[in-house]
Amino acid sequence: MTAPNSLASMIFRPSNCVDILNHVIFRQSGVIQEAVEFSDRQWSTNLPSSMEPTPLLQTSHHVPEDNPQMQLMKRARAMISFDVQKLTAVIFGSEEAARDHEDVRLDHELQMEETDPSILPRIYRGSGRKKQYHDGLMWGKLYLEQDSLNSRFVSYTPKYNIFSASPFGHQLELFGATVKLLGDEEQCNHCTFAQTELGHGTLVRGLQTTATFDPFTDEFILHTPCVTATKYWPGGMGYSASHALVMARLIVGEMDHGVHAFLVQIRSLVDWKPVTGVDSGDIGTKMGWGSVDNGYLSFDRVRIPRRHMLMKNTKLSANGIYTPSPHDKLLYGGLTKGRVGVALTAAFQLAQPVTIATRYSTVRQQGYMGGVEEVPIIQYKTQHARLLKHSATSYAILFSIKDLSETYQTHTSRLEKRDLSLLPFTHFATSGLKAICTEMAASAAEDCRRSLGGIGYSFLSGIPHIVGDITSLVTVEGENYVMYQQAARYLMKAVKAVREEREVHPSLAYLKSFLGNACPSNTNFEDTNAQLQLYQHRAARLLFECHDALSSLSGTPEQLWNEYLLELVAATRAHFHLFLLESFLRHVSHIQDASVKRVMKHLSDLYALTEVVYSSEGSLGFVEDGYLSQRQMIRIREIIRQKHRLLLPEAVGLTDAWNFSDASLQSAVGQRDGNVYKTLMGWTRQLPMNVEVRREGGVENIGYQKYIQPLMAVGRVKSQL
Amino acid sequence: MTAPNSLASMIFRPSNCVDILNHVIFRQSGVIQEAVEFSDRQWSTNLPSSMEPTPLLQTSHHVPEDNPQMQLMKRARAMISFDVQKLTAVIFGSEEAARDHEDVRLDHELQMEETDPSILPRIYRGSGRKKQYHDGLMWGKLYLEQDSLNSRFVSYTPKYNIFSASPFGHQLELFGATVKLLGDEEQCNHCTFAQTELGHGTLVRGLQTTATFDPFTDEFILHTPCVTATKYWPGGMGYSASHALVMARLIVGEMDHGVHAFLVQIRSLVDWKPVTGVDSGDIGTKMGWGSVDNGYLSFDRVRIPRRHMLMKNTKLSANGIYTPSPHDKLLYGGLTKGRVGVALTAAFQLAQPVTIATRYSTVRQQGYMGGVEEVPIIQYKTQHARLLKHSATSYAILFSIKDLSETYQTHTSRLEKRDLSLLPFTHFATSGLKAICTEMAASAAEDCRRSLGGIGYSFLSGIPHIVGDITSLVTVEGENYVMYQQAARYLMKAVKAVREEREVHPSLAYLKSFLGNACPSNTNFEDTNAQLQLYQHRAARLLFECHDALSSLSGTPEQLWNEYLLELVAATRAHFHLFLLESFLRHVSHIQDASVKRVMKHLSDLYALTEVVYSSEGSLGFVEDGYLSQRQMIRIREIIRQKHRLLLPEAVGLTDAWNFSDASLQSAVGQRDGNVYKTLMGWTRQLPMNVEVRREGGVENIGYQKYIQPLMAVGRVKSQL
Ligand SMILES: Cc1cc2nc3c(=O)[nH]c(=O)nc-3n(C[C@H](O)[C@H](O)[C@H](O)COP(=O)(O)OP(=O)(O)OC[C@H]3O[C@@H](n4cnc5c(N)ncnc54)[C@H](O)[C@@H]3O)c2cc1C
Ligand SMILES: Cc1cc2nc3c(=O)[nH]c(=O)nc-3n(C[C@H](O)[C@H](O)[C@H](O)COP(=O)(O)OP(=O)(O)OC[C@H]3O[C@@H](n4cnc5c(N)ncnc54)[C@H](O)[C@@H]3O)c2cc1C
Repeated sequence: MTAPNSLASMIFRPSNCVDILNHVIFRQSGVIQEAVEFSDRQWSTNLPSSMEPTPLLQTSHHVPEDNPQMQLMKRARAMISFDVQKLTAVIFGSEEAARDHEDVRLDHELQMEETDPSILPRIYRGSGRKKQYHDGLMWGKLYLEQDSLNSRFVSYTPKYNIFSASPFGHQLELFGATVKLLGDEEQCNHCTFAQTELGHGTLVRGLQTTATFDPFTDEFILHTPCVTATKYWPGGMGYSASHALVMARLIVGEMDHGVHAFLVQIRSLVDWKPVTGVDSGDIGTKMGWGSVDNGYLSFDRVRIPRRHMLMKNTKLSANGIYTPSPHDKLLYGGLTKGRVGVALTAAFQLAQPVTIATRYSTVRQQGYMGGVEEVPIIQYKTQHARLLKHSATSYAILFSIKDLSETYQTHTSRLEKRDLSLLPFTHFATSGLKAICTEMAASAAEDCRRSLGGIGYSFLSGIPHIVGDITSLVTVEGENYVMYQQAARYLMKAVKAVREEREVHPSLAYLKSFLGNACPSNTNFEDTNAQLQLYQHRAARLLFECHDALSSLSGTPEQLWNEYLLELVAATRAHFHLFLLESFLRHVSHIQDASVKRVMKHLSDLYALTEVVYSSEGSLGFVEDGYLSQRQMIRIREIIRQKHRLLLPEAVGLTDAWNFSDASLQSAVGQRDGNVYKTLMGWTRQLPMNVEVRREGGVENIGYQKYIQPLMAVGRVKSQL
Repeated sequence: MTAPNSLASMIFRPSNCVDILNHVIFRQSGVIQEAVEFSDRQWSTNLPSSMEPTPLLQTSHHVPEDNPQMQLMKRARAMISFDVQKLTAVIFGSEEAARDHEDVRLDHELQMEETDPSILPRIYRGSGRKKQYHDGLMWGKLYLEQDSLNSRFVSYTPKYNIFSASPFGHQLELFGATVKLLGDEEQCNHCTFAQTELGHGTLVRGLQTTATFDPFTDEFILHTPCVTATKYWPGGMGYSASHALVMARLIVGEMDHGVHAFLVQIRSLVDWKPVTGVDSGDIGTKMGWGSVDNGYLSFDRVRIPRRHMLMKNTKLSANGIYTPSPHDKLLYGGLTKGRVGVALTAAFQLAQPVTIATRYSTVRQQGYMGGVEEVPIIQYKTQHARLLKHSATSYAILFSIKDLSETYQTHTSRLEKRDLSLLPFTHFATSGLKAICTEMAASAAEDCRRSLGGIGYSFLSGIPHIVGDITSLVTVEGENYVMYQQAARYLMKAVKAVREEREVHPSLAYLKSFLGNACPSNTNFEDTNAQLQLYQHRAARLLFECHDALSSLSGTPEQLWNEYLLELVAATRAHFHLFLLESFLRHVSHIQDASVKRVMKHLSDLYALTEVVYSSEGSLGFVEDGYLSQRQMIRIREIIRQKHRLLLPEAVGLTDAWNFSDASLQSAVGQRDGNVYKTLMGWTRQLPMNVEVRREGGVENIGYQKYIQPLMAVGRVKSQL
């Protein structure tokens, strides 16, 4: 397995079926090896006919003449002081991995016929719910037919992400598993994971769908007893899935044994019609995930064989005897991987708007700044401060998730030896990082969008699509405020342990050396240890204060917890900011190439210090207790200004390093060569509605005849009065 | 004129043509009376046939049975301790105004047949660019046909806002003006304001479209000399406008006289075809404003008569003699009103997601919090802290804009006496408030969306639509970072004046009494004067520091300005936070009803103190210089917790007071009666794609035949291997 595989293997699989399956199996057996194997597909790679470009779009590849924007871009690239490819290798793990990744991507883009930047990208060639859905099916089919994409190319961009861009994403990995489960008897190519209901998302044990055992027929009866029990959200459930792994309450006689997993066929494999008793459909337009038919589903007494309950360990015998699983701790095992994947997705999905915004800001000239020539907007301090900060954030997320993945991998290999020792820490770190990374990425992406002015508001800039997708990450795979609390619980236990002089995980050892002192006046803030101390001081102080608050007052533990929830979330964020900074510094210290290392050290300085003086909410934590003096804050701002100066010429390089192609960004104004205006006008003219109206002689006829003409008529009468 | 009229007259008219026309006329004459008169339309109010509900939707009005959610809502309403209608009167100016507003709205909703909450609202009955556009035309036609809507009902919700929900919004007010200008000769019902070009938005004097005078024919030749000169963005310009007020460079012989306004017919009034030389179309899908055909437009030597240049004062004679306008100061006069309108829109558009999120959080139960019954999520501290904060913000914006409108009105009445004394202050206050209000509203709206969990991601929650619209406000009518700088310039002049002991505007007098002291230890933070002092101290300190930074170093003024831009923006924000708080406190102090006043005082306390400890970026400013001690910060957090406790039972009342109807919110989960789940399921089933698929027997046939079946077939073969 090459490096990209291992990165890809971490990548976002929302409601990851394998993981949930694992989790279910875990819950029931505690044995990880019993999970899933992939069946290696080598299906036809013929291009489906729907993908043939329409005549209009069969333009020859357009090589643009040079123009001022392209010159600005060239000039900007000439200023970069480091070896961009070397940084790409850092991102993907090795030069080989980076090349491999690029090959796969290029291959895919050729298949999709998306390599000519003068042609309007497919996603903009039409609109409406149905078009989006069919796009998703088409992408998904292509993925399934190209094995290399499956394993090496998930989640690179929102558009190249089978999980949020295709109805098939949700069942991909379940394929092998269910076939295995069902033997030869039945096909189960398209299985969705149906957990969330109208009434319950976070509180899984509150689910209301029932699976009642009928001992006379040895079957379960799946039923939706009330409207809130309707399944709502599962990806692919609307029209695309033949089967669903349904989380439902197991009812045996009078007994409710709580939520278990049941494999239910929901559509006929002959004609795809819903089986009797199943009502399902699409839930409509969303902020993003347009190509996925997230669906609803209700059961009216649908029967399945008893062995379709997943029971690796929990058992229900034919005579109705229930044997619960002895292992409950493993409940979260499966969820963890999905969360790691979400956070990594956040890094890549943030790097895209940063790339687009940095490129456009490099060639967009607006205003004079005292000179005679208009300046590229990246020159404005507010502009480059925002973009460099977001650029740094995308790296911070990436590095922290690389570290988290390592922890996760150690954890899973220990699990194979039935060693659960790393489970609590892995679960804790994953919950907290998932929350902080997705939160940072979502707001940074939107800020990139705004930094473009009007054009960021247009889908042709490529950013609204990403903003719509990325903001889902704060909710999926564990809602962030719930995640923060899971992490906070672990942290509060750690504080207690420190106070009782018990051992804690090494990454929390800093709690032991908290002094409550002030920052030494001669601190050098470019020293990475000094930076770490700042973050450690803040996190430790806030965590100790929370622990005091929870211990000192009257009220039930739940009430106290709730009363100090804002402080707990702030303290938890402070801890994970430390985690992020540690990872950033560690990865920078390992960089071999001197030119890359120098620039990345500036970037980590900028990252570390920007949080101190220009962060949302976080800054207060550094100064409230008098830890940093006003003098030191002034000094920190000076360093930041200096870092901005040093990093401004590197901004394009820092984003080029992620190596997104024009085809993957699908942004008219994020064109790599800077040829933004011609591309934008070309794409605009190719929009289907414009093509159609031109064909009709320049008039949008329905609108004209139905609304405009009648108004004009009345207007005419009136003006003659 | 009743009060709602005066409120409505302030409401958002993006790229407000009257204002721009005023601005042009201003620029050329300085005389406001010469501006526009409305022609009073009394067009047909017949319902267009397209508005007849489709058979499917002709359900009878559905009176839902009681259910747990509706009971929770009733219980919550029973807890409200104040007279909600009295607060509504505060919002709309008087009880009469509030009633009048409600009447108009009801009338409109009846016309639209949108009063039955069990029926899927029109905006969700279809998707795609064309459907959106036709919706906009239909809405716009209805508005134009109902005079009362035009003047009393603009901008109440994104869906009831002719400016962002209809192609006609952009020309509405220009109607009378242009008819007047053109005499009887020509019709100009549908005129767009065409300023922004691909290459220039903020820098208006950089526009590149040319209007070259041809003395032989006494005409101008409108031309687009390069791709960046293409007009891009103007609302209604794609397919709906017959005329455009085009901002273009006036070229006479070799002389370039800069940007002037020209009225250009772009479509035939006979058959609506583009006139020769005009190429226009839609710019495609955007984050919001779906129903507006924001368009592009290029000219290939299009000729117009000389008198179609707007020249009230600037003149160009038939023999090419150019007489410039003597008044340049009035340039910003017209822009101001549009910005006031944008900020007021932000208040109403924020109040909507707050209403939806508060209602849903009141009836959504998830988790136990130690008890045996699931708790409504609003009980979670993070949830009500967020929602109450955003609720307070919507009021803060509203009150500050009421004050700003007064300033604006005083200013315009002075202008009529050719008294320009209030111009700089009005322009300053408007720029700064526009920026801060839209910024706060946009992020609060998105936070409301996230607070709902998954359902906030679905369009049926009503929030994504609002988030998409509201985020445009940071860009339109003056990009926020540009606006902050305009305000900062005024503030730096004020600091200079204070330092030189000259007079400043009364609202800046606080600069004179800045002490640089620490906050007295016995300060009572519920005292409004103490709150104001906190804000004054922060703003003054930051402003003085900026002024020092700009004066003390070497570099050109422009370089220094840019170097300290982050600090300038932060200081400017601090000043406008003071403005917002002052307005809030003033309006609360004027409230008559004791019950309302008590609750609103708690809300203003919460608003004032939340900024101190839980704000984005802002908190630092209060403590960095040691002004507030750690002890005081602890005390402030205690007060906030207490306010949360007091305000939690009022949350629903605080949002009910805005008096949005279900029809105007178009949110399944924001239903006033709490009947969220049945409504949501009902709407979901009515989605057009689901209706169609049901009609086809439960299979989405294209997707199945083209993509799913071929995959299945291959899968089947494989599994037999
Ligand atoms: C794009 C997308 C794809 C999805 N795909 C699938 C899928 O394939 N299969 C599937 O089963 N589901 C899927 N889901 C559903 C998803 O798993 C749920 O949305 C998620 O679990 C959150 O649950 P909820 O929406 O019910 O929110 P709730 O649990 O109702 O929470 C709502 C809000 O209440 C607050 N809250 C709740 N609990 C607490 C607490 N303890 N403390 C503080 N605040 C709290 C939070 O603000 C939260 O946002 C998908 C959702 C989305 C958006
Ligand atoms: C929904 C919508 C409707 C619109 N309707 C109309 C219409 O009807 N008619 C019309 O003519 N136009 C319209 N516009 C265009 C709108 O007026 C412009 O988008 C706006 O003026 C900003 O200009 P720009 O987009 O060219 O951004 P630019 O001026 O190019 O600015 C881009 C970015 O650069 C940065 N920047 C620029 N200058 C500075 C500076 N001095 N200091 C610091 N940073 C800076 C900012 O981050 C800014 O966001 C509309 C736009 C939208 C989004």
